[in-house]
Amino acid sequence: MTYKELSSQIFNKKSYLCVGLDTDPHKLPPHLLKEPDPVFAFNQAIIDATADLAVAYKPNIAFYEAQGPRGWESLQRTLEYIPADCFTIADAKRGDIGNTSSLYARTFFDPDAAGLNFDSVTVAPYMGRDSVLPFLDYAGKWVILLALTSNSGSADFQRQRILTDSAREQELFEMVIKTAQTWAGPDKLMFVVGATQADELSRIRELAPDSFLLVPGVGAQGGSLAEVSRRGLTAAGGLLVNASRSILYASGGTDFADRARAEAQLLQTEMAEYLDAGVLAIK
Amino acid sequence: MTYKELSSQIFNKKSYLCVGLDTDPHKLPPHLLKEPDPVFAFNQAIIDATADLAVAYKPNIAFYEAQGPRGWESLQRTLEYIPADCFTIADAKRGDIGNTSSLYARTFFDPDAAGLNFDSVTVAPYMGRDSVLPFLDYAGKWVILLALTSNSGSADFQRQRILTDSAREQELFEMVIKTAQTWAGPDKLMFVVGATQADELSRIRELAPDSFLLVPGVGAQGGSLAEVSRRGLTAAGGLLVNASRSILYASGGTDFADRARAEAQLLQTEMAEYLDAGVLAIK
Repeated sequence: MTYKELSSQIFNKKSYLCVGLDTDPHKLPPHLLKEPDPVFAFNQAIIDATADLAVAYKPNIAFYEAQGPRGWESLQRTLEYIPADCFTIADAKRGDIGNTSSLYARTFFDPDAAGLNFDSVTVAPYMGRDSVLPFLDYAGKWVILLALTSNSGSADFQRQRILTDSAREQELFEMVIKTAQTWAGPDKLMFVVGATQADELSRIRELAPDSFLLVPGVGAQGGSLAEVSRRGLTAAGGLLVNASRSILYASGGTDFADRARAEAQLLQTEMAEYLDAGVLAIK
Repeated sequence: MTYKELSSQIFNKKSYLCVGLDTDPHKLPPHLLKEPDPVFAFNQAIIDATADLAVAYKPNIAFYEAQGPRGWESLQRTLEYIPADCFTIADAKRGDIGNTSSLYARTFFDPDAAGLNFDSVTVAPYMGRDSVLPFLDYAGKWVILLALTSNSGSADFQRQRILTDSAREQELFEMVIKTAQTWAGPDKLMFVVGATQADELSRIRELAPDSFLLVPGVGAQGGSLAEVSRRGLTAAGGLLVNASRSILYASGGTDFADRARAEAQLLQTEMAEYLDAGVLAIK
């Protein structure tokens, strides 16, 4: 999916909601356990219930990997089921030396490898340029690089101040954002910024004015959609705000899909207001 | 495997060789392609040929993941086949917010999850403390944290100088090593240091005098075993030096296992000399 197509989806659906498919086999409604692939059955119902409200789906790869080979099969089925007009994100946080990163890129981008054809993958920046470039080699595919994450541990290294030759002090996450933009433009590269980091979002928006930001942490982790939207929205949309647990596990019973839709609808309604108000109006 | 057991293995076998199982289906000797699981057949032969010379095996997870569900099955079979006296490393470079890292830990450490029971997993530090702690929750299991990697991109962020309140300047990888040691001791925590970074090894050994270091980059990537050993060996061993491609692909024919053994033997013979000479003598 191109930058322009993603932007169009956002304004068409009046939504920048990404539904995180953090599907935990231990949290499934009991009536699904008799299905041949309960994880897929759950995802299918969640996708059916939210596809007109969401512009993106983000399977968290750990949840599938922890099920072994059958988890990868659930992931394949889920990805195939996501409608073509939705952007897909493999939340995998991979990153390794070049020849290994090439294989991770192949895993998530080349359907002839592991049967997966994601639009994008999340990548960890610690190993630098040659650990990221192989993911950028695929036409039409995106890298979503970790910048400032939503967890408390983000303070340990991401917030450290870096000594540079220039007078202006910068933190590690700022250097990551600046450096990575020398590797690819906003048509191929997004950044992960936690919703719990809203104070830093204005600074990040200045550093990456046209980049899409993937923002997890609204909902269960406590981030504010209003704050994130005020600081992060651009004329092209520029945000994908993820909610996972608050949607998936709104109910543990047979009404889980309806309740998931209701939660997604609340977020989408709020997003539509911010989009209708226009970026300048809400700033 | 405990610190003491690993140390004993090193002195018993006179080896700190780790064989990296970066098994590429496209590089297998043609005669193996008729096997039901060619990747496992290859690994089995490599393990048979090297198990008395190596103290550790390190499957690079990307190579298995890129094969989809059948790759995970090859990985399960391979891990089961590795002799119990060898330390096993899932080279996965995972790391995510706490609840997700818990699932990655379960994947590699809990045999009831994905059918894997590794001794250790490599972890990326960018997301900080709470992204690493879940891996440390497993008794008898190890975290091998990326510190200073062997690739050129290690200069981009790992070598950045950090501003701290103390007078002494430090680079990011040094801060990672110091900080991580407040999370766990050398009985649970190792560091990845590339063999191409031998100049920094003495400094790293000072920062982490008792920690095992996993050192990739000898062989195909050009690092020197002599330099690494001189700067990294300790009285407990303290090193796991990895070689992958130079062993696995020493020959592409029916003699691949013999040639792999010969390559491993060269490294082990050199390691035995350094161990026999004693740490102080070679310093």
